[in-house]
Amino acid sequence: MSHKRLFIPGPTEAVPEVLGQQTQWLIGHRSKDYTALYTGIIDKLHQYFETRQHATVLTASGTIWMDITARNMVRKKALAGVCGAFSQRMANTIRDSGKEVTPLEVEWGKAIKPEMVLEELAKDDYDTVAVVHNETSTGVRNPIGEIGAAIKKEYPDVMFVVDAVSSAGGDHLVPENLNTDIIFASTQKCFALPPGLSIAFYSDEAVERARSVPGRGFYTDLIAIHDYYGKKQQNPTTPNISLMYALTYQLDRMLAEGAQARHQRHEAMAQYTRNWAAKDMEMFAEPGYESITVSTIANTQGRDIAGLNGELAKRGYQIANGYGAKLKEKTFRIGHMGEWTLDDVKSLLWHIDEIWRR
Amino acid sequence: MSHKRLFIPGPTEAVPEVLGQQTQWLIGHRSKDYTALYTGIIDKLHQYFETRQHATVLTASGTIWMDITARNMVRKKALAGVCGAFSQRMANTIRDSGKEVTPLEVEWGKAIKPEMVLEELAKDDYDTVAVVHNETSTGVRNPIGEIGAAIKKEYPDVMFVVDAVSSAGGDHLVPENLNTDIIFASTQKCFALPPGLSIAFYSDEAVERARSVPGRGFYTDLIAIHDYYGKKQQNPTTPNISLMYALTYQLDRMLAEGAQARHQRHEAMAQYTRNWAAKDMEMFAEPGYESITVSTIANTQGRDIAGLNGELAKRGYQIANGYGAKLKEKTFRIGHMGEWTLDDVKSLLWHIDEIWRR
Repeated sequence: MSHKRLFIPGPTEAVPEVLGQQTQWLIGHRSKDYTALYTGIIDKLHQYFETRQHATVLTASGTIWMDITARNMVRKKALAGVCGAFSQRMANTIRDSGKEVTPLEVEWGKAIKPEMVLEELAKDDYDTVAVVHNETSTGVRNPIGEIGAAIKKEYPDVMFVVDAVSSAGGDHLVPENLNTDIIFASTQKCFALPPGLSIAFYSDEAVERARSVPGRGFYTDLIAIHDYYGKKQQNPTTPNISLMYALTYQLDRMLAEGAQARHQRHEAMAQYTRNWAAKDMEMFAEPGYESITVSTIANTQGRDIAGLNGELAKRGYQIANGYGAKLKEKTFRIGHMGEWTLDDVKSLLWHIDEIWRR
Repeated sequence: MSHKRLFIPGPTEAVPEVLGQQTQWLIGHRSKDYTALYTGIIDKLHQYFETRQHATVLTASGTIWMDITARNMVRKKALAGVCGAFSQRMANTIRDSGKEVTPLEVEWGKAIKPEMVLEELAKDDYDTVAVVHNETSTGVRNPIGEIGAAIKKEYPDVMFVVDAVSSAGGDHLVPENLNTDIIFASTQKCFALPPGLSIAFYSDEAVERARSVPGRGFYTDLIAIHDYYGKKQQNPTTPNISLMYALTYQLDRMLAEGAQARHQRHEAMAQYTRNWAAKDMEMFAEPGYESITVSTIANTQGRDIAGLNGELAKRGYQIANGYGAKLKEKTFRIGHMGEWTLDDVKSLLWHIDEIWRR
């Protein structure tokens, strides 16, 4: 297969030196060598995310944390902000785990605001609020800092869970500043690694809550994860060792660049893409709430997006069509995350312009 | 870290050419290229396991299928054979998912027999039976073919779930011959790949059952997995693409060797190890029920196992101590699975003899 530079919202480009880490010999996951590898990763995560919350790396895609949220955080009833396909999935997962959930719905393209959350929390006895930070389908970036502050001020016992799958590691997120009890991500997005691991930070209060919620299972049991790390500094089940090698290497690269610099690089790519789109199209996201890692652009000129991607493929590039039947061809998405730089984005957009000029 | 040849019961040795597959460029998991990769893997799994059951590869360790069993198969009450640490975990996972479970316990080292299962099934209204084929802690290989036949003859509606995490791909297992409704494995055992993926086969009846069981969640929802593959020949969430490259490559190697030849190779390694142990020790497993992929040996001479492993490390080898507080130093384990050959086992055992002679 020819190499296509992935400007889709994940998996994004992983560079050869990172992929190459996966060729190291395997080691036993109950060995001291593994403990050293894994605790090193946890230390680096603490440094990068400037947090004292608990950190963990679970062998599964980030989505598994929707199940973990449902099985560990929700005692009886959750409020879930729904503003696109992935936040809808969070609400569905809670419902399909046998818990009650109220979807707090806004029109796709709009953001979830703190006042909406507070208004709904006043109406019923909620124990958990779940919000997707960066809604990968619509390119909306929800104001989780403001939402977290609003919730915790009035409802300190409500657990605040944030899906940051497609933003963490690009967007600079500090759990304590956001008041999150669980915040989770996937390796194949802004971490620019292969898919296969999820990264999460969770509070002491999340541990306390989980201990009181029955039916957590095993693979999805936050307490099993937490206690095993406390006792042995390892994982309850066999982790993906190859990807742990790549993760430790990549976290060093991320620390060398710096969280703030990475944030600015992502913001610069997003800003350039927005200005480019503004020439004759519009952003799909509500102004002021546009993602800095994925731009969803309204295809107001009715251009052939599948055709564009076919042409881009010949030039070694790939972008993403709109998500699902609802947004396909009506929007298209450019993932500018992970390894990409402003120059890479400029090249991509030059090619798109050039294809459209023909 | 220096290279230790892993004779532990997983992760086992993955050879450089297999690890190297993971350096290929990532591709989008919603692309035609990915569909071709994944359907190719499913085809090869069907060929190798000589089955017409549904096959799937999920990004998680095999243990997640204990949660999937609890959430998808168990309607009300399960019977779980318990003969070691991993089968205990299966029983616990069902219980900790809020379902009823009766542990059918035998002394560690003994096997679960069909008549025990039938006797217990007659006593209560069970809807699921779960058995671990190859109990990695005790080195017992349960007679799942006989158990499956016995269950299905008298209780055709009872779901039969088998954990074959540490045997499938070594031991030759054909789902239809075993009457399994779900049988699952992990890549880091007899498939000789890095950890990070689980492989499972499931019957039409398992799909039917799952559709009638509420509370399946999302990542652990067999129906989400099944329907997404039916509709798009892809996975519901982002799969570990790097490991899929390695899996497709490794399945070609496994098909080239042949399932029967691999079975015989594992049997020869096990037989040699048993004869070696019989010189002055005993197998921990009940005679006639010894695993062909991992030998658990009773340390009847009271030798220092941790010390042995320290000496072996200097020579570039690693074996496993007994599992958990219960079996540590009282037993030790030699994993002879995946890539290893009879000659490799002979070399390992020669080194152990040589260390003990000093």
